[in-house]
Amino acid sequence: MSPDITAVDLGATDHIRARIDGKAKPPGSLGRIEDLAVTLGVIAAPNLPRIDKPVLLVFAGDHGLVAEGVSQYPSAVTTLMVKTYLAGRACANAFADISGVTVRVVDAGVDADFPDYPGLIQAKIARGSANAALGPAMTVAQAAAALDRGAEIAAQQIRDGADLICLGEMGIGNTASSSLIAHRLAPAPLDACIGVGAGQDTAGMARKRAAIMTAAARSDATAPLDVLAEFGGFEIGMMAGAVLGAAARRIPVVVDGFITTAAALLAIRLNPAARAYCLFSHRSAERGHDILLEALQAQPLLDLGLRLGEGTGALLATPLIRAAARLTTDVADLSEVLSGSLA
Amino acid sequence: MSPDITAVDLGATDHIRARIDGKAKPPGSLGRIEDLAVTLGVIAAPNLPRIDKPVLLVFAGDHGLVAEGVSQYPSAVTTLMVKTYLAGRACANAFADISGVTVRVVDAGVDADFPDYPGLIQAKIARGSANAALGPAMTVAQAAAALDRGAEIAAQQIRDGADLICLGEMGIGNTASSSLIAHRLAPAPLDACIGVGAGQDTAGMARKRAAIMTAAARSDATAPLDVLAEFGGFEIGMMAGAVLGAAARRIPVVVDGFITTAAALLAIRLNPAARAYCLFSHRSAERGHDILLEALQAQPLLDLGLRLGEGTGALLATPLIRAAARLTTDVADLSEVLSGSLA
Repeated sequence: MSPDITAVDLGATDHIRARIDGKAKPPGSLGRIEDLAVTLGVIAAPNLPRIDKPVLLVFAGDHGLVAEGVSQYPSAVTTLMVKTYLAGRACANAFADISGVTVRVVDAGVDADFPDYPGLIQAKIARGSANAALGPAMTVAQAAAALDRGAEIAAQQIRDGADLICLGEMGIGNTASSSLIAHRLAPAPLDACIGVGAGQDTAGMARKRAAIMTAAARSDATAPLDVLAEFGGFEIGMMAGAVLGAAARRIPVVVDGFITTAAALLAIRLNPAARAYCLFSHRSAERGHDILLEALQAQPLLDLGLRLGEGTGALLATPLIRAAARLTTDVADLSEVLSGSLA
Repeated sequence: MSPDITAVDLGATDHIRARIDGKAKPPGSLGRIEDLAVTLGVIAAPNLPRIDKPVLLVFAGDHGLVAEGVSQYPSAVTTLMVKTYLAGRACANAFADISGVTVRVVDAGVDADFPDYPGLIQAKIARGSANAALGPAMTVAQAAAALDRGAEIAAQQIRDGADLICLGEMGIGNTASSSLIAHRLAPAPLDACIGVGAGQDTAGMARKRAAIMTAAARSDATAPLDVLAEFGGFEIGMMAGAVLGAAARRIPVVVDGFITTAAALLAIRLNPAARAYCLFSHRSAERGHDILLEALQAQPLLDLGLRLGEGTGALLATPLIRAAARLTTDVADLSEVLSGSLA
């Protein structure tokens, strides 16, 4: 279920850092872009990092917990947003166009059936997860299938040429699942992991908190696969699988916000070697994201108050990641500049 | 000398914000990207913002103050780096390629003569400024000419189709000039405006501080044009002119780090209406940048520990700025999504 992941060669770090230091700029003057170049270099070693074909996978799924009123939006919005991605009219499409990223939408478990469509990957486990306040969101077999399918989807993209996998998601109710995953796997106090998600008023937050607490009280699962099965959802499991699948092929993964980071945490708890392949794009405004980032010792690149999901933060960070790769491959060495050989 | 600048129509703010709020996402969920979309919308009003042809202008100049040992690099490096930009091998070129930005290099006052070259704009005022520790860095007429030429260069780019002007610079010794400009125009205590620039050891910092203090003691200028003439340099004056020239044509300007922000401050002190056209790309690691940002009430988009210049920070922020424009023009309204008209 969890593919073999080769540990990155940290022994290459000094060599790669020296290479970056030798570029035509004062050492250290590109700050975190240099750190990023080293991270990419270590992942690619002994090759040089190349990011020419980034792909965003937007995993979509519905959540039975929505019946408890955890979101101000109905599940039908998940379906409508999938159609919006396929029509090329969502924020993710606009940002992907600017960042030169190809968008693929994965039906991981939306409560609707879609006809085949260019850019749509049909991988549905079920039409929505079960209500986690009443029982497990999915069976353990379904959880394992979500991981497997996510890994295979990432692998297929990489076979088709993808050299960077950006993760995004859409699923009404999925911040609730993510709060439960954060709580069990960070681990952290449940209340500190609960935020407003797509937006909630005071009464809505009370409903959301109550539903999450009911689900948490129902199961004391702490093993990653069990946590996924108990609390959902299909798109989160599939994203975790995609992290494992990309890492197994030594391709870096760009993690988006709260929900995507919960999926990354799940993947990393299943196989800690996956951590070194994860790049964290932004610090979300969603409460609980800081807890996940701290659990993963991750310092995201951007801090723009984003809390949309869809991979929008990953898309905005992609040009920075590509720039870091180009620093390694395209920029002259200072010695070349000083020798006048470029004149 | 200072072109007429139309004040932006802040009355359009509510209308533009409502338009962004109506997009297919929870209101406010794109955080600072939404604020940026509003800023771009106000600049473009009544038209919609479009950023299809961003141009980076890298202004280069030499500084007589280098004779006092303010930099660990000799002035010759300015010339060598100009050649590196023209050869397409600098960090700025690599980042511009990723961000889809066209690079133009402006010889504002390099201490070398260049043959004509594609992408090089010959606008030299003189072969380097005079040593500001001994006397004015340039005449007031030269300072005025730098502003004029910078405004005309931006205007020409805009006539040629540029719809976003990114500013960058290269000039050994130019953090020293910028410290003096920050000190007089922010204003702020001189010592708080002095940083390591491209890098300095303890002895080098002592030399740099002494030279800057000598220059400061020589003149009590506080009028913007006089400050430019006293402390230089040509590339800083030309960048200030470019800010004014772009603002006069209602085109936004992306400000880079410490030196570029000093130039923007100079422009804004000459004509405060220019402020509304300036977008601040990143918080530099160079000491003194925070003082400039505070003086301009600017909150930059990125905080990555950059201190290179060349417009590298402006280039990394450009995709965020383009994404904000696309949010306005390309993303469906929530009402379209909910009506199912995209299905």
